[in-house]
Formats: sequence, C-alpha cells, structure tokens
Amino acid sequence: MYAITIPEPGGPEALVWAEVPDPVPGEGEVLVEVVSSAVNRADVLQRQGFYNPPPGASPYPGLECAGRVAALGPGVTGWSVGDEVCGLLSGGGYAEKVAVPAGQLLPVPGVDLAMAAALPEVTATVWSNVFMVAHLRPGETLLVHGGSSGIGTMAIQLAKAVGARVAVTAGGPEKLARCAELGADILIDYREQDFVEEIHKATDGAGADVILDIVGAKYLDRNVRALAVNGRLAIIGLQGGVKGELNLSALLNKRAAVTATSLRGRPLAEKAAIIAAVREHVWPLIIGGVVRPVVDRTVPMADAAEAHRVLESSTHVGKVLLMAPTAA
Amino acid sequence: MYAITIPEPGGPEALVWAEVPDPVPGEGEVLVEVVSSAVNRADVLQRQGFYNPPPGASPYPGLECAGRVAALGPGVTGWSVGDEVCGLLSGGGYAEKVAVPAGQLLPVPGVDLAMAAALPEVTATVWSNVFMVAHLRPGETLLVHGGSSGIGTMAIQLAKAVGARVAVTAGGPEKLARCAELGADILIDYREQDFVEEIHKATDGAGADVILDIVGAKYLDRNVRALAVNGRLAIIGLQGGVKGELNLSALLNKRAAVTATSLRGRPLAEKAAIIAAVREHVWPLIIGGVVRPVVDRTVPMADAAEAHRVLESSTHVGKVLLMAPTAA
Repeated sequence: MYAITIPEPGGPEALVWAEVPDPVPGEGEVLVEVVSSAVNRADVLQRQGFYNPPPGASPYPGLECAGRVAALGPGVTGWSVGDEVCGLLSGGGYAEKVAVPAGQLLPVPGVDLAMAAALPEVTATVWSNVFMVAHLRPGETLLVHGGSSGIGTMAIQLAKAVGARVAVTAGGPEKLARCAELGADILIDYREQDFVEEIHKATDGAGADVILDIVGAKYLDRNVRALAVNGRLAIIGLQGGVKGELNLSALLNKRAAVTATSLRGRPLAEKAAIIAAVREHVWPLIIGGVVRPVVDRTVPMADAAEAHRVLESSTHVGKVLLMAPTAA
Repeated sequence: MYAITIPEPGGPEALVWAEVPDPVPGEGEVLVEVVSSAVNRADVLQRQGFYNPPPGASPYPGLECAGRVAALGPGVTGWSVGDEVCGLLSGGGYAEKVAVPAGQLLPVPGVDLAMAAALPEVTATVWSNVFMVAHLRPGETLLVHGGSSGIGTMAIQLAKAVGARVAVTAGGPEKLARCAELGADILIDYREQDFVEEIHKATDGAGADVILDIVGAKYLDRNVRALAVNGRLAIIGLQGGVKGELNLSALLNKRAAVTATSLRGRPLAEKAAIIAAVREHVWPLIIGGVVRPVVDRTVPMADAAEAHRVLESSTHVGKVLLMAPTAA
C-alpha cells in the first residue's frame, strides 16, 4: 500500500507519499481500507519530530480514519468484512490501510462515509474531557478556547445539545460567526478582548463552570481567574507552553480543579471505554442530526503537506480531511 | 457567656477570654452549650488577622465543637434539647455557647462527648477531598503529607478502612511511629528523605494515586512528580505558599488532576451534604471502633493561647482540644 512517511522530521514537505508494507491485523485488531483520514495538531508535532508514536503504534501519522473493514484479526467479534466504520488510531491513518483495535471502531453514524473521519478524535476528546472528567451539567457555562477548531466546533454542539451555555474564544469575527451558527452564546475575539473580563460580564460575575483549553501555560493564570466557584479547567493542548504559574489560593477559594489529559497514550481499555461512551451518548445526537461533523475542506492524502499548511496557518474552521486515492 | 475574643490580631497572647453576649439561634439553627472545641490551622491565621470569618459567621475563632443542644431556632427538626452532638462551625467554637446550622450537626458516635470535638473538621475535610473529590478506591495508594496532624491521623485511618495503601510524610521517627500505629504502610521522614523518590520506590515506580496536601506551592512540582497515571492531587492547605509552577506537560502525560478546596467558605447546602456523607460513611466506622479520634492533649479553653503555641510548634500528634469551663 501507499502511506505518508516521514523520512526526516521537518516542515510540511517532510511528508512523503511512499509505498510501504501492508499492515497485518493482530489479535483483537481489524484491518480497515481507508477512505479518509483527518489532520490533528499532534500530527504536526510528529512531523516536526516532537511527538514520537507510542510503543507498538504505526510509524505513519494519522489518529483517525473512516473506511471499510477489509479483514479481521484473531478474536474479533462484532465487526464484519465490508462494514463502514470510523475509528480512533494511535497512528497510521495517513495510509491506504490501517490495523485498528476493535474497541476503537465505531459504525458510521448516518453521515457520508468520508466525512466520518472528522468524528473520532473530536468526539472522544470532547466527551471524555467535558463530560466524563469535568461533568458539564445542563445550565452550566462552558468556555471553549479555539471555538472554530475541530475540537471547538464539536464542543460547542455537544454542550448545547445537553443544555449548557457556551462561550468561545476565536480569532476574528468570521470564525466567531461560524461558532455562533453552531450555537455558541458568548463570542469572544481573543485578538481584541480579554476573555476573563468578557466571561465575567456575560455570567453576572460568576465565571465559567468548565473551560476546555488547548493553550496551556500561557492561559493558566487567566483560566483560573475565569473559572466559577466549583469550576473545572480541562487542558487538552499545550500550544502556549508547558510550565505556568498556578495561583493555588485562587483555586482553593473557588474549590476548583485543573485536569490535563491526552488520548493517544491511554491504554487500550481506557480508549475502548471512551469509544463506548461516545457511541452511547454522542452517536445518537449525530444520527438524529442534532450534531454534525464540521469539515473545512478535503485534500488528497498524497498532498498531506498542503493539509498541514492549512492547519498551521489556522485559517480553517473545523476539520481538514485527507482523501485516500481509493476514495470515491 | 464567655468566649475567646481577638481584640487585636497578633501572637497567641492576642486570644482573650472575655464576657460577650450569648448567641441567638436563627432560622434553622441550633444553640449548642459547648463542652469542647478543637484548634485548627485556620484559627491561627484568624488570630494573626489573615483569615477573616466569612460574612454572617461568629467573630470568635473555632471551627468545630462538641456539646449539648440547649435550644432550637425556628424550623429545626431532627434535634432535641439535651442531645449530645458535635458540629462543623464557620466560627465561634471557642465559646461557652454557639449557634450551629442544624445540617452541620452530628450525633456523638459512641466516643466520650468531649473527644467528639476532634471529629467534625477532620472527617469532613478528609471525606470530602479524598473520597468525594478524589475518589480514592480500594487498592490505590494515598500519600498524606503531615501524617501526624489531625487531618493526617484521620486520613490514614479512613483510607486503610476502605482498603487503600497509605504513605505518609512526617517530621521524625516518633511521629512516623504514631502514623504506623494508625495503619500507615509507607513512612517517609521529610527531614531526611525525598518523598518523590520514596513513593516511587514503594510503588514499583507507579507513584501515588491520590495525594492529600497541606503544603501548596512549595510541594506543587514535587507532588505532580509523585503522582501516578490518573493521579489526583487534593490540596487543602497552603502552608508552603500560594503560587507555584505547574508542569502541565507532566500533568497531561499522567492524565492527572489538581484540586483545591476549603470547607469554611462553602454554602450551607454543600456543608450539609458533606456532613450527611460523613454521617453515612464515616460514622459507622467510628461507632464500630475501626476509626477513632486522635487527641494530642486537652487545654482549658481560657488558655487557648497555650493550645495555639502547641499547634505552631508542630510537636503534637492529632488534635488539640479546648475544654469549656462547664466541661466535666
């Protein structure tokens, strides 16, 4: 098969479409013929040499895919050859075929097969953090940093679907307008406004009950200030640095929590538990048309470099998909 | 009645036993004739002028008491005059009488009435943090900083009672021996040993699943290093400063959480919910003799200054009680 390889870490041009051996599904794994994959921030870090795949993972980038079941490894039940699926990967999505642990696959929830590659990472990340860890409840306020990102567009929709109020930060009025279309109630342009001030204004001084953050250190102190009493700050990215000063007195007075997670390094059983929760709670919302994948554009997989340039320019809204050559 | 007043903030001598007006129980409150109270770190801060009572609270120090119900305010059910009780206060325990919200009272759980003043703060703090927030589970490892403190002696016993493994830090072999008597499995002398190294040695490199911390900033980075994957750091005191550097990358790689809480500032409903949980989960263990109050010494209430000197010298193990003049 062909896959995107990274002979040497570097810029987008480091991504090379090359012939490689087919993957062989191991015990409990399913071989998927890939129709589409999607680009994640972690893929950029992997391309740059800063984020090595965990032990046992595919060396090729790509943390999610959609496609058709091509073969079953030993011990797999619940899936059949030909099933249309999407799945969470620990790597290898930028390829014509990938072997996936059966517990990380999901049926395609009534959307176009290729579009389903936009769903696994964002639904698993948002559900596990905003709902399983931070327990966002109806009537509470969620603040989403980067509301127009793939994660952000899903977080807005899921939080609205459960009856929460949603505030977003994004860069500029166009991105904020897209967030508003998806249901966001409070729109904060981080280029022009201070989100701590704006969230307090919009909540009668209470602050955000849950914050979903991709910035990390640079926002840590301001995020704690933006939290409400009993607030939960869920950090899922460190685009603004890894070490920040934490004001424990503010945290204690608010009886607040700071959590940080990533999906990729979790053991199989935890990933399977998250995927099962996504299938139970999120899939019915997508099947019912309440929540939908938001796709900025599709790019041929062999041109993954172009998709990375889009992601790095931050001009996109929602997900950037990679279409395998076999895609219709 | 008489109470300990603080005419001017300062050292232990700032505590003055003086005649003051009797408290009047308001709606939903119970008037308790105090037999004993207990000393908490927050009382020292209040004496020094650093921790003002929350709005509506008694101006006198004292966050817990034991005694007898002397009168019921309007709307109180479930308690009768003469009942032997102990209770969580937002202040006013260093006095002959105190008005307590009915939801913060507990029956005396089969221990000497005066000794029951050692229970409300430590049981509510440990249960709410280690179990309600951090969800310590059987088989997990709890690290308790200050194992010989009032909080520490209760945390050791409760964690052992639910089947957890307990590590403690304390200053010197005598305090550690007392912790071992209460059930602590892993003994770390913080004067001689590095707790990060010791906890990893004792857990095959895994680290602590839950840490109960009273130090704050000074231990923040080391606490994160001492945490296991999926670990929870529960901060309840800031004796080592309020602002510390948090390594978010370490937190994210461990999928860990940092929480901070205090009891005193919580609304009545939250305090009542914690007290109800303590009555349900902790009281049977005390009634059954599995868990007991640990009392370092008793001091006449009028000599509260002496009790504060003991607390500040950190020579005690467990709680220091103040006996009201009416105490038998």
